[in-house]
Amino acid sequence: MSSISNQVKSLRELKRNQKNLSPSPIPNKDFTSASREEILNRVEQDYKDFKNTRTFKFPSWLYGPPKGKLFKVEVEDCPNFGDKAFVEFDSARTAFLSIDMQVDFCGPKGYVDVMGYDLGLTSAPIKPIMHILYTIRNETDIKVIHTREGHLPDLSDAPYNKILRSKIIGNGVGIGNIPDGGLGRLLVRGEKNWDIIDDLYPIPGEYIVDKAGKGAFGQSNLPLILRNLGITHLVITGITTDVCVHTIMREANDNGYWCTLIKDGTGATDYGNYQAAIKQIKMQGGVFGWVSDSSKFTKAIKSAFNGG
Amino acid sequence: MSSISNQVKSLRELKRNQKNLSPSPIPNKDFTSASREEILNRVEQDYKDFKNTRTFKFPSWLYGPPKGKLFKVEVEDCPNFGDKAFVEFDSARTAFLSIDMQVDFCGPKGYVDVMGYDLGLTSAPIKPIMHILYTIRNETDIKVIHTREGHLPDLSDAPYNKILRSKIIGNGVGIGNIPDGGLGRLLVRGEKNWDIIDDLYPIPGEYIVDKAGKGAFGQSNLPLILRNLGITHLVITGITTDVCVHTIMREANDNGYWCTLIKDGTGATDYGNYQAAIKQIKMQGGVFGWVSDSSKFTKAIKSAFNGG
Amino acid sequence: MSSISNQVKSLRELKRNQKNLSPSPIPNKDFTSASREEILNRVEQDYKDFKNTRTFKFPSWLYGPPKGKLFKVEVEDCPNFGDKAFVEFDSARTAFLSIDMQVDFCGPKGYVDVMGYDLGLTSAPIKPIMHILYTIRNETDIKVIHTREGHLPDLSDAPYNKILRSKIIGNGVGIGNIPDGGLGRLLVRGEKNWDIIDDLYPIPGEYIVDKAGKGAFGQSNLPLILRNLGITHLVITGITTDVCVHTIMREANDNGYWCTLIKDGTGATDYGNYQAAIKQIKMQGGVFGWVSDSSKFTKAIKSAFNGG
Amino acid sequence: MSSISNQVKSLRELKRNQKNLSPSPIPNKDFTSASREEILNRVEQDYKDFKNTRTFKFPSWLYGPPKGKLFKVEVEDCPNFGDKAFVEFDSARTAFLSIDMQVDFCGPKGYVDVMGYDLGLTSAPIKPIMHILYTIRNETDIKVIHTREGHLPDLSDAPYNKILRSKIIGNGVGIGNIPDGGLGRLLVRGEKNWDIIDDLYPIPGEYIVDKAGKGAFGQSNLPLILRNLGITHLVITGITTDVCVHTIMREANDNGYWCTLIKDGTGATDYGNYQAAIKQIKMQGGVFGWVSDSSKFTKAIKSAFNGG
Repeated sequence: MSSISNQVKSLRELKRNQKNLSPSPIPNKDFTSASREEILNRVEQDYKDFKNTRTFKFPSWLYGPPKGKLFKVEVEDCPNFGDKAFVEFDSARTAFLSIDMQVDFCGPKGYVDVMGYDLGLTSAPIKPIMHILYTIRNETDIKVIHTREGHLPDLSDAPYNKILRSKIIGNGVGIGNIPDGGLGRLLVRGEKNWDIIDDLYPIPGEYIVDKAGKGAFGQSNLPLILRNLGITHLVITGITTDVCVHTIMREANDNGYWCTLIKDGTGATDYGNYQAAIKQIKMQGGVFGWVSDSSKFTKAIKSAFNGG
Repeated sequence: MSSISNQVKSLRELKRNQKNLSPSPIPNKDFTSASREEILNRVEQDYKDFKNTRTFKFPSWLYGPPKGKLFKVEVEDCPNFGDKAFVEFDSARTAFLSIDMQVDFCGPKGYVDVMGYDLGLTSAPIKPIMHILYTIRNETDIKVIHTREGHLPDLSDAPYNKILRSKIIGNGVGIGNIPDGGLGRLLVRGEKNWDIIDDLYPIPGEYIVDKAGKGAFGQSNLPLILRNLGITHLVITGITTDVCVHTIMREANDNGYWCTLIKDGTGATDYGNYQAAIKQIKMQGGVFGWVSDSSKFTKAIKSAFNGG
Repeated sequence: MSSISNQVKSLRELKRNQKNLSPSPIPNKDFTSASREEILNRVEQDYKDFKNTRTFKFPSWLYGPPKGKLFKVEVEDCPNFGDKAFVEFDSARTAFLSIDMQVDFCGPKGYVDVMGYDLGLTSAPIKPIMHILYTIRNETDIKVIHTREGHLPDLSDAPYNKILRSKIIGNGVGIGNIPDGGLGRLLVRGEKNWDIIDDLYPIPGEYIVDKAGKGAFGQSNLPLILRNLGITHLVITGITTDVCVHTIMREANDNGYWCTLIKDGTGATDYGNYQAAIKQIKMQGGVFGWVSDSSKFTKAIKSAFNGG
Repeated sequence: MSSISNQVKSLRELKRNQKNLSPSPIPNKDFTSASREEILNRVEQDYKDFKNTRTFKFPSWLYGPPKGKLFKVEVEDCPNFGDKAFVEFDSARTAFLSIDMQVDFCGPKGYVDVMGYDLGLTSAPIKPIMHILYTIRNETDIKVIHTREGHLPDLSDAPYNKILRSKIIGNGVGIGNIPDGGLGRLLVRGEKNWDIIDDLYPIPGEYIVDKAGKGAFGQSNLPLILRNLGITHLVITGITTDVCVHTIMREANDNGYWCTLIKDGTGATDYGNYQAAIKQIKMQGGVFGWVSDSSKFTKAIKSAFNGG
């Protein structure tokens, strides 16, 4: 047995309740933090405001005055299930994310198809996303960002266990392989199956982020692009709800972005997982952000931009 | 309307199917990648091996020969629902994670209690984790890492929307506030409610990671500690299943760690969300890793270490 | 010899000039990027503006209108050596960084002292930083952030080679050891030698970031705090110029922050390295940002805030 | 004046020496850390070993036994100036980095040329790198990774201040512009000037990392590739020494990699900055790693692989 284990054993007689071990900070309780008080005062005020307006207002005190148009989107089951509330956006600081709407995830002979899942589920969000893109492109200054999951042709950016598991679930056809009658190597950048589907293809002025993982922070350019564009609020769609969409929403939320998922603009390989992924967001008053739908979102945009 | 929007409109007549826009790589199809072929050959071999053994073997070719003892843990619903398989670990390269087992998440007057959730659900994993810790501490060289979610006393590392939402769902009592009869400021480092519960408190030789977010990569020391310790495989427990546990498992998986969740060693604020979080992991042959339970895990350890 | 090596050898007869290998993007040259044109038009305009004003104006088009007071700081050797220029700040979006002004780096019996370096060099910036802090604290809404390099008491966040090299250069006394007559374990959090020196100790309302590395992005809360505070511009001081100060400046610059180093507010363990670190910033028109001094900086603040 | 500022002023009468403010951990001094003791014992042993052998041995206790061949490279001015020492590598866990050897940095009509710097300085490392690549490719299983700095054609991953400064120093011709008689848009992915020079072009089986910044951690695939390949030690070359080379070396060192710079395999836009960048690495017994040269490195390889 290792020396660590021996040391641990010889030490475990030590009093267990020697608490607040090393890495824990013990703040000076008498020390009044000017910083904390300022934040708590702000929150107190915004909390009262929310009780009156049911609105998460755009925080001009934090980001500065609006640069585009303000619009309010109704969100569901917030703060509690059955409630409704509103999130206010500044159009010029809003990015619309269309995540991984690639052939590999919602088209025939792609990765999801090869694994034997129902394409009807992952292709369901195509029409709602088209509808939103049409509205955004014609009327607004909202930025549009598309992501693509995929690996370098040498597979150097794919963890080995990811490749192996895909090979097993695909009965011998995994990442980097070409399925029978397939369009190209699965999940490999540059292949037709890896690219975004025709109906949702980016147009000039929109952004594309390539990423190797389910998430997009820490190993892609997404954080840099969001910062360069001055984005504070995200409107999230794409596939699959419980995998890439949820991972990116979690990362963005941890980084302070105000995230709203458009529930009919997303789909999963399993309907129960889709429903649960939506519900998980709503816990704790919105632990990862908010949930709305394409109809409420486009209605809010049109109302603000006087479109029709 | 903004100039971006105008430009976009004036450009959208351009042929939509000008594909493979800027950020996309177009590999030279004739170029045979030595790197890819080597990986695909390795995967082919391990795939055949898996079909015979149902085991995800410890990849010595990648990490070097085992430094501790090898042990095989049975995992469920892998690669397909209803199947069983095994994951092989090198004990010296395995870390056991106990995530956020803090009073704030599973004890009275803590954060989850104030929000009105059922403590029975989030405290359910305490006994299974105790059982695993007892086995690990007495018999093995497996590393133990505890995490704590919490914010600096000045709240500088808490995104404003996180504080505001906690205030609203807590009916005026959120992060940084002291609930009636509470133990201290909610989710603030150094407070009693923020610390790990007595039953699962770290002992000498174990590690503690403090983190501000749901996840732990990108803003905590966890990645550095895992690297310093030479860890390749993670065994994951803690609360809550669908929030911090899932976020860390997603991040670790994206970073190439081999992750196994111990399903009775974790709990959520909603039982349906707990069940769905377990199922989401199993999709696509294990999209975020594998699922096992405390009984199977301790049995595997005891068998390898001749303890028991 | 390994199989990779063999493969490489067997492949190297392949035509060497098969260029633009896998990961390289080949943009469609005919595709006019609306996004790029917009940025290039903006740059063209700001370039002309700079030629007239010699000023890097605060980019309201990007961040929104100023929230605090605007002030212009003269910077040296910009864009070319011998030139002077100005950087404009919005006080409410500016953070002043005081990096690692700890006993371990500029006080007796600290880490730098044990290694045998001249404390006169690393303590030189104390007075200029005091002067700036006095001005900021009395007159402005500029945020103040202090950093501390140090390791968890269990040393879990210290790379092994860092500990070993410190042991060797310290002739047996390195990170985690207590030097003869020392104040505590070198570079360990919570020890007196690790804390910030009295003269520059934070006051209420200021922020402290603890970090394990030379840099502060990727493993500390600094990026999150900067985002929470809405910071766009950094004014950088501290020690040592060529190590922690430069590393943080490089990281912040890569992340898009507008960084200005206060040259007399920083020091190194070697005067030549200090001078070179200053010069390196000025290359390529300011490859990591700009260089000014405490006198120019406080003058600019006083002028804007009508103080005196 | 802002409310923060007012609060700060009203609070500054508080006793200044209320030390160890909030974020600081106060470890329990009586608590003996099994983890720390184990590390310090290991360091003690390796320190004694170093005094006898002058060698930083490959740490098999940490990474496992060697997978390739061990070889020892002489490094200079370590631990003190005038001393010599050795670093031991496991060839199978070593990656050779060739950083940014692009036309834009060392070729005619590229970015560095347009800024008016001496191409003789940045092209000096070409021959030493060729020599090393020849040795590695013919004899070893050392991995070769090339990096390229560049921006997406829509410039979305370029911080605005980077573009503006390049425009100013280039007298109107910056990132995204095509210089007179140039090969393409400066620093834009896919352009001829952006690609790696012919003499050092990757061959099959080697890896390419594209990055937007000076560094490569946090926004590129480099960390993932290093982990996938099981790399522990880096041998670093490329341009420019004080900018991209140093930034990547700092990041890798902070992340625990054992980094050795090949001094004649690198160059800067200013010779004094080159010399200082070399010296900065050697401070504090090797604050960012070690320094060797191409002759010592290839000699060590040949000796281990019986080549030559």
